[in-house]
Amino acid sequence: MTYENPYMKGRTWPELNILETLRHRNPLVICITNDVVRTFTANGLLAIGASPVMSECSEDLKDLIVHASALLINIGTLTPDKVSYYKEAIALAKKYEVPIVLDPVGCHAGAYRLSVVLDLIKTGNISLLRGNQSEIKAIYDALGPDDEDNNSTEGKGVDGAQVEDSAVIAYRLARLINCPVVATGEEDYVSDGTRVFAVPHGHPIMTAVTGTGCLLGAVLAAFFSAYYPCKNRLSIGEFLAYALAYYGLAGESAVQVSGVKPGSFSVAFMDALYSLDDAVLKSENRIRPIVVPDQLEVYFISGTQDVELNE
Amino acid sequence: MTYENPYMKGRTWPELNILETLRHRNPLVICITNDVVRTFTANGLLAIGASPVMSECSEDLKDLIVHASALLINIGTLTPDKVSYYKEAIALAKKYEVPIVLDPVGCHAGAYRLSVVLDLIKTGNISLLRGNQSEIKAIYDALGPDDEDNNSTEGKGVDGAQVEDSAVIAYRLARLINCPVVATGEEDYVSDGTRVFAVPHGHPIMTAVTGTGCLLGAVLAAFFSAYYPCKNRLSIGEFLAYALAYYGLAGESAVQVSGVKPGSFSVAFMDALYSLDDAVLKSENRIRPIVVPDQLEVYFISGTQDVELNE
Amino acid sequence: MTYENPYMKGRTWPELNILETLRHRNPLVICITNDVVRTFTANGLLAIGASPVMSECSEDLKDLIVHASALLINIGTLTPDKVSYYKEAIALAKKYEVPIVLDPVGCHAGAYRLSVVLDLIKTGNISLLRGNQSEIKAIYDALGPDDEDNNSTEGKGVDGAQVEDSAVIAYRLARLINCPVVATGEEDYVSDGTRVFAVPHGHPIMTAVTGTGCLLGAVLAAFFSAYYPCKNRLSIGEFLAYALAYYGLAGESAVQVSGVKPGSFSVAFMDALYSLDDAVLKSENRIRPIVVPDQLEVYFISGTQDVELNE
Repeated sequence: MTYENPYMKGRTWPELNILETLRHRNPLVICITNDVVRTFTANGLLAIGASPVMSECSEDLKDLIVHASALLINIGTLTPDKVSYYKEAIALAKKYEVPIVLDPVGCHAGAYRLSVVLDLIKTGNISLLRGNQSEIKAIYDALGPDDEDNNSTEGKGVDGAQVEDSAVIAYRLARLINCPVVATGEEDYVSDGTRVFAVPHGHPIMTAVTGTGCLLGAVLAAFFSAYYPCKNRLSIGEFLAYALAYYGLAGESAVQVSGVKPGSFSVAFMDALYSLDDAVLKSENRIRPIVVPDQLEVYFISGTQDVELNE
Repeated sequence: MTYENPYMKGRTWPELNILETLRHRNPLVICITNDVVRTFTANGLLAIGASPVMSECSEDLKDLIVHASALLINIGTLTPDKVSYYKEAIALAKKYEVPIVLDPVGCHAGAYRLSVVLDLIKTGNISLLRGNQSEIKAIYDALGPDDEDNNSTEGKGVDGAQVEDSAVIAYRLARLINCPVVATGEEDYVSDGTRVFAVPHGHPIMTAVTGTGCLLGAVLAAFFSAYYPCKNRLSIGEFLAYALAYYGLAGESAVQVSGVKPGSFSVAFMDALYSLDDAVLKSENRIRPIVVPDQLEVYFISGTQDVELNE
Repeated sequence: MTYENPYMKGRTWPELNILETLRHRNPLVICITNDVVRTFTANGLLAIGASPVMSECSEDLKDLIVHASALLINIGTLTPDKVSYYKEAIALAKKYEVPIVLDPVGCHAGAYRLSVVLDLIKTGNISLLRGNQSEIKAIYDALGPDDEDNNSTEGKGVDGAQVEDSAVIAYRLARLINCPVVATGEEDYVSDGTRVFAVPHGHPIMTAVTGTGCLLGAVLAAFFSAYYPCKNRLSIGEFLAYALAYYGLAGESAVQVSGVKPGSFSVAFMDALYSLDDAVLKSENRIRPIVVPDQLEVYFISGTQDVELNE
């Protein structure tokens, strides 16, 4: 008997087939990523059934972009030259309607990184922002309202339980920049500006392997290509929650094989990304919707119907 | 009892010692390769008993080239600056008579990549071209005769069996650009323009690990250094067929250890490259010579004696 | 019962806690390293409990350097542009008093590399030089006295046994450039210009995995951050000997798990770096002090007291 997540639509979607769709589509994901994680990213994308390609100049990118399902921009080892290239790449992706995932690596740790990230967001062409909770907070702090009242990210959810700041920030930032936001941490949060989901998967050993965060950005980029056929069943926020759950479940499954050892884990994680399937994703995900205080205001004051409360 | 390949000279060459020679020589292979596969390439070269060195500018390369046994140029993450460097490197290698292996990564997928590859080939200094079958075909299509009749790559071999297009293309391209051509795929083909060999080794999981193709280019570069002492026994085409068989056998051996899991396979593959020896290469290779239609014309019309038909 | 190294102060230091201190401090190590080893370096630093960050331009580095415990400069894939960046990075690190480890990869193999290394050393800001014995010798030969007599690196130690040239060179170079020198090889030597230690750990398979030398440079950089609290107990030379012993012991421990197979070893080595602790370091290190001939001159002629002879 498998566990059935009582919170998620999966229970009424017996044929949940996100991974099958993804692998069938074998999406080409162009990665403009940092110098440390290219191999891990390429191997991870191959493992999930996507096709990675790294392209490092516009001359090349304009040939490849026409075949692409998604573009990842990860600023981990940025330089002024690369920043120019990010912008050219965003323009090309926009022209060919290729979705763009931005991973703002380390933007909480330096003014230069943050300014680059804000510039890229301001193009208005980012389709998904994926960062850790410190990075997402730094972006929100830079872009959010100055008003301290409105800016408070503390609050209680409908059930009276404390809602994590990071969930609130993900929701607000998604509304502010008008694209889904994934904020990863011990528990991951994703919001498309309408709903918010918590995804409590993964294992701490993942933080001892370089590139696990960066690869997630690439994996989310690959998942975009599988969203279209699921569109009528799932909001993009919920869909991304499944992608996060898949990634975290692969980590949990890997650590069962490897033990808490970073070298062995890294190998087992690739194996798990390769073998984990929709049945496991459906039966073992512990995704849960979250209601953040802002939503209640919208709900009760404006009567907006797009928040589904847990009944 | 070991299997003895009935097709190959190995049966009359009891002391086949290619790997022993290679490891004894410990050739220095300079790799100008792409950003994704450098670590895997370096580790693979170390595993087979070669010494890798990566050099990224002419100032450095001109010091190192004098010690080198071979130079690999892999265009996987090309930029205009790197293309200039490829050309400088080719000129330096030519000056010091260092053989050059060219890996035209992705040249079938973009006009820029293809134009760069054609430029490099036109230097006339490439010693070996190693690509997958799509890449090799793209180069042949760009360089081959326009005449549709002559350009047909369909045909039957001497035994009436269908000869794979890729084998024919490898043969023709080798004659056209006057250097051996390796076209990898489910079955690999190699031709030195005189003979053609099919090498049916490897395992599909290899395509789920980034760099297995790129590393092969580097491995072939390393093998060049072991060819000289084998020169009187083997044509370069046959010699390269052994190199391909070794690489594919290492893949087959690795998957026995790892199972069909990309992370585990990648580790086991390094182990297999390190441990596989001449005895296994001799007894387990399934290399077979192929006769392509063009050769028959040459053979019967011109009386050229360099095609050895299977008796 | 554990082995107690009779040579080292550890015997009188029951609470030896270098690794505990290091892991508690979780030092940020900025790595400006070569294109081949970035992933391995980042994973190795994570495994020992440090935080790696790669920074590739001054705009970024000046934000990050203020948080850093150490800076690594590894010239493995140098270019003229990168050399300019190394110099900017050294100036920034100096400004913020961040210790700098220099890894002069391949400087024995090319005049360009050597000239770059000498330039960097001449800034006077290098805190530790870590190279293999050929690299260290090349630097010493370039900087050392011309006088052949003084330049002789052959000699006998106090016990009449042959002292390895590399130990003598490490000692002399440390005095000459006024910073500790680590010269790795089958047996490693470290000198701070006052004392010399031999560290006979590790395993030959380490040379078949790319980046084991380069990662050591990064690991030594991380160890700097743990030196301050040990300052009153250990000279920097002795402290670095422990760092080398830890690294070599991790290699020995890994090969017990993996066997002599480079792929498996690489994985097991990460696991071992992660799990090896102070108890093992204390009980299993075979560090031994060495007295080089030059020290005897200093000792007997000048009466300098900083050489501790084995009683």
